[in-house]
Amino acid sequence: MEVKTGPLLAAINYPADLKKFSEEDLEQICHELRQYIIDVVSVNGGHFGASLGVVELTVALHYALNTPYDKLVWDVGHQAYGHKILTGRRGQFHTNRIINGISGFPKITESEYDTFGVGHSSTSISAALGMAVASHYKGEKDRQHVAVIGDGAMTAGLAFEGLNHAGIENSNLLVILNDNCMSIDPNVGALKEYLTSITTSKSYNRFRDDVSHVLTKISALGPNAHKYVKKIEKSIKGTLLKQSNLFEALNFRYFGPVDGHDVKRLAATIKDLSAIPGPKLLHCVTVKGKGFALAEKDQTKWHAPGLFDKITGEIKKSVADKPQAPKYQDVFGHTLVELAEANEKIVGITPAMPSGSSLNIMMKAMPNRAFDVGIAEQHAVTFSAGLATQGLVPFCNIYSSFMQRAYDQVIHDVAIQNLNVVFCLDRAGLAGADGATHHGAYDIAYMRCIPNMVVASPMNEEELRNLMFTAQQENVGPFTIRYPRGSGVMPDWKRPFKKLTIGTGRKIADGEDVAILSIGHVGNFAVEACTALNTEGINPAHYDLRFVKPLDAALLHEVGKRYAHVITVEDGCVQGGMGSAILEFMADHNYKPNIVRLGIPDVFVEHGEQPELWDVCGYDTNAIIAAVKKIAVGRTTKVMAS
Amino acid sequence: MEVKTGPLLAAINYPADLKKFSEEDLEQICHELRQYIIDVVSVNGGHFGASLGVVELTVALHYALNTPYDKLVWDVGHQAYGHKILTGRRGQFHTNRIINGISGFPKITESEYDTFGVGHSSTSISAALGMAVASHYKGEKDRQHVAVIGDGAMTAGLAFEGLNHAGIENSNLLVILNDNCMSIDPNVGALKEYLTSITTSKSYNRFRDDVSHVLTKISALGPNAHKYVKKIEKSIKGTLLKQSNLFEALNFRYFGPVDGHDVKRLAATIKDLSAIPGPKLLHCVTVKGKGFALAEKDQTKWHAPGLFDKITGEIKKSVADKPQAPKYQDVFGHTLVELAEANEKIVGITPAMPSGSSLNIMMKAMPNRAFDVGIAEQHAVTFSAGLATQGLVPFCNIYSSFMQRAYDQVIHDVAIQNLNVVFCLDRAGLAGADGATHHGAYDIAYMRCIPNMVVASPMNEEELRNLMFTAQQENVGPFTIRYPRGSGVMPDWKRPFKKLTIGTGRKIADGEDVAILSIGHVGNFAVEACTALNTEGINPAHYDLRFVKPLDAALLHEVGKRYAHVITVEDGCVQGGMGSAILEFMADHNYKPNIVRLGIPDVFVEHGEQPELWDVCGYDTNAIIAAVKKIAVGRTTKVMAS
Repeated sequence: MEVKTGPLLAAINYPADLKKFSEEDLEQICHELRQYIIDVVSVNGGHFGASLGVVELTVALHYALNTPYDKLVWDVGHQAYGHKILTGRRGQFHTNRIINGISGFPKITESEYDTFGVGHSSTSISAALGMAVASHYKGEKDRQHVAVIGDGAMTAGLAFEGLNHAGIENSNLLVILNDNCMSIDPNVGALKEYLTSITTSKSYNRFRDDVSHVLTKISALGPNAHKYVKKIEKSIKGTLLKQSNLFEALNFRYFGPVDGHDVKRLAATIKDLSAIPGPKLLHCVTVKGKGFALAEKDQTKWHAPGLFDKITGEIKKSVADKPQAPKYQDVFGHTLVELAEANEKIVGITPAMPSGSSLNIMMKAMPNRAFDVGIAEQHAVTFSAGLATQGLVPFCNIYSSFMQRAYDQVIHDVAIQNLNVVFCLDRAGLAGADGATHHGAYDIAYMRCIPNMVVASPMNEEELRNLMFTAQQENVGPFTIRYPRGSGVMPDWKRPFKKLTIGTGRKIADGEDVAILSIGHVGNFAVEACTALNTEGINPAHYDLRFVKPLDAALLHEVGKRYAHVITVEDGCVQGGMGSAILEFMADHNYKPNIVRLGIPDVFVEHGEQPELWDVCGYDTNAIIAAVKKIAVGRTTKVMAS
Repeated sequence: MEVKTGPLLAAINYPADLKKFSEEDLEQICHELRQYIIDVVSVNGGHFGASLGVVELTVALHYALNTPYDKLVWDVGHQAYGHKILTGRRGQFHTNRIINGISGFPKITESEYDTFGVGHSSTSISAALGMAVASHYKGEKDRQHVAVIGDGAMTAGLAFEGLNHAGIENSNLLVILNDNCMSIDPNVGALKEYLTSITTSKSYNRFRDDVSHVLTKISALGPNAHKYVKKIEKSIKGTLLKQSNLFEALNFRYFGPVDGHDVKRLAATIKDLSAIPGPKLLHCVTVKGKGFALAEKDQTKWHAPGLFDKITGEIKKSVADKPQAPKYQDVFGHTLVELAEANEKIVGITPAMPSGSSLNIMMKAMPNRAFDVGIAEQHAVTFSAGLATQGLVPFCNIYSSFMQRAYDQVIHDVAIQNLNVVFCLDRAGLAGADGATHHGAYDIAYMRCIPNMVVASPMNEEELRNLMFTAQQENVGPFTIRYPRGSGVMPDWKRPFKKLTIGTGRKIADGEDVAILSIGHVGNFAVEACTALNTEGINPAHYDLRFVKPLDAALLHEVGKRYAHVITVEDGCVQGGMGSAILEFMADHNYKPNIVRLGIPDVFVEHGEQPELWDVCGYDTNAIIAAVKKIAVGRTTKVMAS
């Protein structure tokens, strides 16, 4: 589908081209840029509402600043489509998030305008401060450093740590708070309420003006009045004004709130602020999804809606030719409610991913037992630990790659104390179009080295349910269940619960010579591979480990005794992953099979569709078939040679 | 040495005993408790200044609250000695931090009064909130939940995340901010300046009183004046007062600042606050080291001074009978300055550990190139990433166990972007008396699974210098150097730099049958073991790997080809650690030696002296000797049997 570019936008390939236009043209440029994003995303997919919300901000920044000499850091980066289009990538924008195409996030290797690679939230202040301090050290006094961060991202501890440090560095840092009251879901927390109170009640600056206006009038009432006014002014100036704003308390100069859709005023403001040294914050109010009515109305749905009709707003769904298996996240969401109905100790926790994790199902059904704590993975885990000390059983659902944010809390607050917190790691393995920042590649490696921790992964929906059922029992200690993004394999998934014995796997198929050991959903690839191989007379055994920790010793002794060749398959890194756990077991028990490990190799895997990436990484059905055949052929050759 | 207990303290074994005393006795009890801590710590060692600073707070809390029904969470916990003494552990206090003795931190398994295990900072708000929410859910309305957190700990993002969530939960949470302007080193950052401004300038409450007093007077001046006053009051009430304090901005009710050494008033205040529902914060000003003049004067030195003469204050030093090898941290500190003098791109970063990491040497020599960012490991790493994008080479020094706090930042902000940040992980391996929370047990496992990351560990001081020298070269990407707490082995350590080839190890000794592969300082145990074994005619080979990632392929091919038995030795967890990396290499290249892995087993190791713990875990010199002999004996038996 051809996407037309508006006449002004067509003339803009780089910010230098944008700067040739007069201020009067900026609104039209914004209009064309917004339309271009709508046109392309509607047919190609991707993030949507966030980029629409910052169209004016994006244009204003590139108009007012001297990028790429000035350093512009986008937090999270799913709002940077306009930025990409204005910085040399309009021609590639249709390849957004497609394998070998441009990334859906800023990426340092993609453009000199992308100063810092992002994907996870709340890094921008720290990163931009690093750049600003480097400029200061190098004597580049004229260089501007701007972090654009959403109010959702501002709730994460890292952002606060950045503010706390920036407040004492006299470097050239402008933080633009893009306040749209949203994460992917509505933003939560005290900070959000505070920002709302600033923007909905009288503005801070206006308060200062007001008070000073009234004081002037009182002063005119006579000498006594004048004396009192002086007293009040002194009190206000000496104490309160310095501390009267959360950001000013942290030594930032605070400006705003301003209308984030007034592009001319924004450009002028950003230019003005460039002249002010030291840390400063511009509070900018925007509407996520701005300019596309449906997206403004249902901001969560339109965060990343998939393909849609840009006229009617109808979101296109793939037509199923057979009953659909549910998403793993929905199995989690519904199952948690089912379990919680029977076990009053269960509570649910998500750091800002109610819809992404499907915890919203429990939030709706049991609002007093399900907590969205905002973008705050660390707190989500330690808060869960606190709940668990009082005998509750928290199911703390965090995307695998985001769990990296709470690694110390898992070790220090949960595992050392052997608390019964159930970690449900969604998006484990290769996550698809979001790319390297979002793949849950390392969780098996970083979880299985932690004492007391159970690490499990279900091969299908029924197994996920049974693992959740098992994890909520009394005194099982910390329990990790990882499962992938996307759909399972069982349309008929809602089966009765079965309690599993922790540390037991399943034999899927007996076989000869070669044993395939799989963990998690990739077990289905192994099943397909076995079916295909069987038709050729090759019969590998297949075991679904189910638990990486503790390992099923009986199962592995059987494998060690019976099979000369083992192939391990996992949707996780091969360094230190499940395959390494098998190597450890075999070494510890003096078995010496040949072991081939299939999984994510030791590189950062880029974006693409999951099946494309599984293929690239070499652990899909075909890869397993090839690995088995390589052994089978080797064996045949050897037999023939002997 | 006998330690006397004061007469009142002698009658207090539990808070119930304390409550029998009148308010008038509290000061004397504080005096005796303080003296008891001084007496015991001076002869047994341990943390010192922090507990002295909270003596009054500790007594007041247990006097005013109904512990253990009420939940009291100490942040970090090195200040909880008084708490331990008042809650059933006076008799065991002399075993503090000694192997099999009580822990230097609160520990859930040690006492029902220890509600939450700590060691790392900034967890208390989240944990206490979890408890408070659990109580709310269970309908226990009378239960109090108190988090005591220092101003240093408050700078960490986790604390902010906790505040942000607590502000919207209407649960019974009291945060006591123990403001002593210190971490281990002086606290830094904008928050610290803010707290100072509150306490040194007019207090916030007093401001409110003042303004309202003056307004009343103005009002009396006449109807016009009255009208203006109403306007001002409306402005203040409607906007500013709600937002006039950082904590109130986050929806906490703020009280204070109060004198943290006025035990009677503290007790009364805490009792009063118990009656107020919802989140509240008591700002309490204390002096770290209070009551021991030298400790008040040099708070960093007296954070954990070791043994000392409680009368003269002389700190006891072990008398060396031979030239002393330096601490690894000092080798780091001096070497960094030396490198930075020659390479202007080098900068140093520490999250609140200038003295613990010895980065204070650089902070003194090059104040504009060394940054203490406060307790903020996440920010330290992302800030370093920002610096690195501008061509600087940050040496970011973080204790191994604290690096768990910044795991996502290492992956997401540094490794994915392949930035040249050098991570120096001090206290790697078993850290000693601080116990399970502080052992750097997992870093090899959690670092080596990250693509692009170099993971190295020096066997001695010269190797540390050479690794640092190698890491600061252009374009080497992310580079981790882990080294242990304590002293090295080379009194004559300051040797010329030698650039190493990344991914190359060293052969220490040729040998027969058995190859010992070591990483880091435990290589010295292997050297001792070999020397001892040689006298018995047993000659294992010994290789110092130096790099866990990338592995030295040539060296390992030699080992794979020549040795039927391999023993790996590391001061790190055996799940996924260096030994597993060797298993992976051998499997990938079809070598089949028997491999025995020595290292930290799959349990949380408690506190004790390092040599005690190395022994317990089975990887010290004797353990290596035993492992080699077991193989040698097995082999001999086999030879005799054949």
